[in-house]
Amino acid sequence: MKTHLGGFGVAFRPHLKTAKSLDVAHIAMTSPEGPAMVSTLREAEYFAEGGVRDMIYGVGIAPGKLARVSAIRVRGVDLAIILDSIEQAGAVAAHARSAGGSLPVLIEVDADGHRSGISPDDGATLIGIGRCLTEGGAVLRGVLLHAGDSYSLSDPASLAAAAENERLAAVKAAGALRSAGLPCPVVSIGSTPTARFARDLTGVTEVRAGVFMIGDLFQVGVGSVAIEDIALTVLATVIGHQRAKGWIITDAGWMALSRDRGTARQAVDQGYGVVCDLSGQPFPDLIVADANQEHGIVAVRRGSSAALPDLPVGSRVRILPNHACATGAQHDRYHVLGGTGAVGAVWPRINGW
Amino acid sequence: MKTHLGGFGVAFRPHLKTAKSLDVAHIAMTSPEGPAMVSTLREAEYFAEGGVRDMIYGVGIAPGKLARVSAIRVRGVDLAIILDSIEQAGAVAAHARSAGGSLPVLIEVDADGHRSGISPDDGATLIGIGRCLTEGGAVLRGVLLHAGDSYSLSDPASLAAAAENERLAAVKAAGALRSAGLPCPVVSIGSTPTARFARDLTGVTEVRAGVFMIGDLFQVGVGSVAIEDIALTVLATVIGHQRAKGWIITDAGWMALSRDRGTARQAVDQGYGVVCDLSGQPFPDLIVADANQEHGIVAVRRGSSAALPDLPVGSRVRILPNHACATGAQHDRYHVLGGTGAVGAVWPRINGW
Repeated sequence: MKTHLGGFGVAFRPHLKTAKSLDVAHIAMTSPEGPAMVSTLREAEYFAEGGVRDMIYGVGIAPGKLARVSAIRVRGVDLAIILDSIEQAGAVAAHARSAGGSLPVLIEVDADGHRSGISPDDGATLIGIGRCLTEGGAVLRGVLLHAGDSYSLSDPASLAAAAENERLAAVKAAGALRSAGLPCPVVSIGSTPTARFARDLTGVTEVRAGVFMIGDLFQVGVGSVAIEDIALTVLATVIGHQRAKGWIITDAGWMALSRDRGTARQAVDQGYGVVCDLSGQPFPDLIVADANQEHGIVAVRRGSSAALPDLPVGSRVRILPNHACATGAQHDRYHVLGGTGAVGAVWPRINGW
Repeated sequence: MKTHLGGFGVAFRPHLKTAKSLDVAHIAMTSPEGPAMVSTLREAEYFAEGGVRDMIYGVGIAPGKLARVSAIRVRGVDLAIILDSIEQAGAVAAHARSAGGSLPVLIEVDADGHRSGISPDDGATLIGIGRCLTEGGAVLRGVLLHAGDSYSLSDPASLAAAAENERLAAVKAAGALRSAGLPCPVVSIGSTPTARFARDLTGVTEVRAGVFMIGDLFQVGVGSVAIEDIALTVLATVIGHQRAKGWIITDAGWMALSRDRGTARQAVDQGYGVVCDLSGQPFPDLIVADANQEHGIVAVRRGSSAALPDLPVGSRVRILPNHACATGAQHDRYHVLGGTGAVGAVWPRINGW
């Protein structure tokens, strides 16, 4: 991802919410100080403690969180926030005035109707927010977009079109601000699919992506990650069989795998995950077909003629996840595998808010 | 639940996996020492540390976990295990002989085809496992069943029938063991729906249930919990609006609510949860219609004519969960509300294995 985006001459701001691990962040970031994106203030505090100095908190700010933002900033961290309404801008400007020091803000722009953000066509609101911030005492740093609807795509042409749509929306919003004499130094876009499939980033200053750094079956379905590049598995133990039904029962249920069933809406439904041998090689058509809290029900995919492998009680298997962010969050650490498959370092991760 | 089951003269063994909190366990259990059920050895260790002395680890044992079981037992905890195969029974008996001390085992019996367990009609395997255990050096304590398929029901007559089916399977399996001269002092059944709807528990010695102690929207759909008795909400803050779409955006996405969408397969789909005011009163037809990692998209249920409430940025709402076990696991503590709605004690909880 670094190489790919470096070729476009844009900054790369990895989203650290996927792994929530300083060790992973050090691999993903272009420098130990960032830039980086976070999804919670808990992440901002954790990564600040770990030396990251350039972050954006990528969830629309609530006024009640501004004191915590300022507490991170006074530690020398350039933590920026995002918002998409005049009412938030007013609260942020008032806080900036009372707290002193600068408070950089990006206006969230809606690339594709996915969730939050101002329409790039709504120049009046964009300019209104920009003026409220700059005249009120905060710092307008730019615009930020996330083409979340790209997750529903799976062919390269549509993904490239989604990336171009995201870019055009960003450039239009930035242009609206600048035409009103407002600053817009940062034009930030990104999602793993659009970052991967963008062909032109003219007018963009930085790109964000997160899930690419681990990868998962959902992104394989989108086409933005190869299955052999998925870097996270859940290690499970066989605890029984229902041979008449063709079931192998493991001790990795949805508590270990997460309840995420993202691939259920893709062309290939991977159940709760793809079952691999200890070396990470998938068994043919073997998936976690169902899950209880601490039980995984492993079976051959419906319609497949693949044989159920012989896995006696006590056998260990590795399960590729639907969604790296969700599965990782069910755990408090990563056990790092060396080239030989031996467990090496333990990398802690955080959860919570 | 204590009163209800006490009327039948059976022991009550609450399943502590729902809350994973010693404070909650102390309310749920009939004594501070148990009995109790756990779903992981991490729970067994945590509750042993907290003084619980009578537990069953309710996931089929893998031989590699027996040393950890023994380490808990030598601390004076009567921790029993379950299994459903001759191969497990052989491994357990061998461990019991080599480790010394008693190792009590319940044979898991399949009540309804839900996941694990020996068919109650397969007397030969039940007796074979029983003999392997008792002759090999372990202790056969009885049989254990879980009518998990009761979760798919919603009318009282079917639920009562599922409970009776669970009881009959248990009695039949116990009878098979006893007719072969094997001991079967414990006949353990249970699930929240069947515990609630059982009309006869003849031949049963103990009943287990877990999710009842917190309750959730899924159990409301089953009919085993009333919505006003759900004891857990996620506190969320409004961070924005997409007024043209009728959306209110909050900072409680699936990371806070869990990915559990259990009500999607019930008569009333509650999305990612029902939205309430701060006092816990649901807004009419207001649900979390969709969720991203840290964003909840709140909207009026499709087809409803209810008005979207006026909730400016910064407003706080409470969200009732689909599944108490899954939502609780996304957090590391409970903030306990007093009668006035004020936050009182903080109750820690555990996760992990």
